[in-house]
Amino acid sequence: MEKIVLTPGKLKGLIKLADSEGKFRMLAIDQRGSLQSMLAKAAGKNKEEIGYNELALAKRLVTEYLSPYFSATLMDPQFGVPESLKYLDRHSALLIAREKSGTEAAGYKNNEKKTVLLHEWNIEKIKRAGADAAKLLLYYRTDNTEEVKEYQENVVKKVGEECKKYDLPFVLEPVGYAFKDDEPSTDSPEFASKKPEIVLNIAREFSKEEYGVDILKLEFPVNLKFVEEFHNGYFDGKQRKAVYTLKDAEDACYEITKVSRVPWVILSAGVGMEEFIHNVAIASKEGASGFLAGRAVWKDFTKYFPNESDMVVWLKTSGVANYYKLYEASKKAVPFYEHQQFGSFASIAIKGAGEDWYKVF
Amino acid sequence: MEKIVLTPGKLKGLIKLADSEGKFRMLAIDQRGSLQSMLAKAAGKNKEEIGYNELALAKRLVTEYLSPYFSATLMDPQFGVPESLKYLDRHSALLIAREKSGTEAAGYKNNEKKTVLLHEWNIEKIKRAGADAAKLLLYYRTDNTEEVKEYQENVVKKVGEECKKYDLPFVLEPVGYAFKDDEPSTDSPEFASKKPEIVLNIAREFSKEEYGVDILKLEFPVNLKFVEEFHNGYFDGKQRKAVYTLKDAEDACYEITKVSRVPWVILSAGVGMEEFIHNVAIASKEGASGFLAGRAVWKDFTKYFPNESDMVVWLKTSGVANYYKLYEASKKAVPFYEHQQFGSFASIAIKGAGEDWYKVF
Repeated sequence: MEKIVLTPGKLKGLIKLADSEGKFRMLAIDQRGSLQSMLAKAAGKNKEEIGYNELALAKRLVTEYLSPYFSATLMDPQFGVPESLKYLDRHSALLIAREKSGTEAAGYKNNEKKTVLLHEWNIEKIKRAGADAAKLLLYYRTDNTEEVKEYQENVVKKVGEECKKYDLPFVLEPVGYAFKDDEPSTDSPEFASKKPEIVLNIAREFSKEEYGVDILKLEFPVNLKFVEEFHNGYFDGKQRKAVYTLKDAEDACYEITKVSRVPWVILSAGVGMEEFIHNVAIASKEGASGFLAGRAVWKDFTKYFPNESDMVVWLKTSGVANYYKLYEASKKAVPFYEHQQFGSFASIAIKGAGEDWYKVF
Repeated sequence: MEKIVLTPGKLKGLIKLADSEGKFRMLAIDQRGSLQSMLAKAAGKNKEEIGYNELALAKRLVTEYLSPYFSATLMDPQFGVPESLKYLDRHSALLIAREKSGTEAAGYKNNEKKTVLLHEWNIEKIKRAGADAAKLLLYYRTDNTEEVKEYQENVVKKVGEECKKYDLPFVLEPVGYAFKDDEPSTDSPEFASKKPEIVLNIAREFSKEEYGVDILKLEFPVNLKFVEEFHNGYFDGKQRKAVYTLKDAEDACYEITKVSRVPWVILSAGVGMEEFIHNVAIASKEGASGFLAGRAVWKDFTKYFPNESDMVVWLKTSGVANYYKLYEASKKAVPFYEHQQFGSFASIAIKGAGEDWYKVF
């Protein structure tokens, strides 16, 4: 049987990012701007008053108390790696972010977004620091204006090429956003209706081999606050118009699985745990390979800032419990090696394996 | 309190190489020439008849069945990595060898040995392949002739510099050997008497910062077959002269711990399991941080070659049992972060940690 070949850095990285079941059960603590806002709110301060020490502390605590549970942990290089790396559990693989927090306004009415790569930071450094993968957040719509689209696509290609050069898995997180006149906000029935197509188009685009992506980190393709079953304020008390059903959510996930050339995982995007559990369960059942969860897992611990011991207690109890809830929700997730790209673990081989491998690698 | 600073690649590597107790319980399956001989003997063949496929199979089986137990696994890039990497358990860190198998005769009566680095292989490739550390085997005596000594020291410096460049832990395995007129062989009372000093001098030499070594993989500093307690053929039935006692063995290990600037581990060098268990227990009690064990762990499985199912059965039973024996023997090993270099885990920090870390790294 024909083997699917991978380079050793990519293969070892994928194996490390997944847990022993081959499922990606990963933690994101690379938030910068959003974490700063949460800590400021809790402490009754201005955002600017939350600096390096405060951010580094919060990230360090999440890493220390939660990384032992998750198969991998995503850090940022500004406030994460320098203080948190030491606290990363040896069983949790390391992902490091490539982009800067925030985006550059561009395109139509300046409503579109361009990614800004973090200056004086690169994939060579990410590999050198010992990461098992690099991650890039990218705001993107296939119906962005041409100039913005091309710019964003080129950023992905550039990072993809560098990840190939350093033989490092590339986790791309392309997320949609509202920018058109008929899209009042992402929390609108208009945007919700479009979301399945937006996410599907994204998955299709970045499945192209030219981008060199190894794992797609995607939004849940429907907004569950707008499904028939939950539109009556189920998650947050706010009434919304029903624009689809849970069956539509399943179908949308299944469509993603069909078009995605690489294993995909669900991101949490700031939704609450209950909603996220539904996201993870549905996506897992329909072919996702797990999750890369951030705020949904830990956001409530920021409420105790700056009381460190209360923050720790929250993480050790509710934070850990959130892992187990997500573990359960992702029980049906597809092991990465069973993704259609591979078929099974037995199909995978090292590229160029043989007597001359070490010469040509 | 003053922090001991490490770069992230080195720190993450050390944490990965050690198990959750901070102890190095590592497996070596990077043997080439010696494994070839064992397989040939078992199959009743000439050494040359054991080629890539046979070596790769044996290495793959050891990796597949034993790596889930050991905190790290050492592979060679010729017959190991290309076929075994896929089978490395996600919890076992990866070391890859830098040198070629065998040495170049040199120096006094051509009895001395020069290391040959594997051509078309380097530290950049080791890092790129996803290794957590690089390993270099080096035959060495502080009383080698000047030219050989300088040559060998320069090899270590070169590899040490490259490991710094790629921020990869450097495991150096410097081993003594007999080359003088008054040293009939390593299995002689003459050589046995000298061994404590030979190993101590090696530990002292390669503790110098200029070599950039992170872990020393050392021989047990006395030959237990020549101690008072075991000289009457205890391990292999062969009578030998007693040249020291077990207390001397303890003292010799303690001396190594005192001079070694970096954590050190015990290698198995082809001794049997029973002798190796004594080595590990004594070294651990006297300050070693664990072991990097090769043939002692798995050599008997080669007897079943080429019967693959018997080889597997041996590994799954006796091979695994050998891990547990070594786990027990190394219970008193010093966690790497409690080595005098660090003092405690709390003393360790990332070099340059702070707001500008990612810029200057």
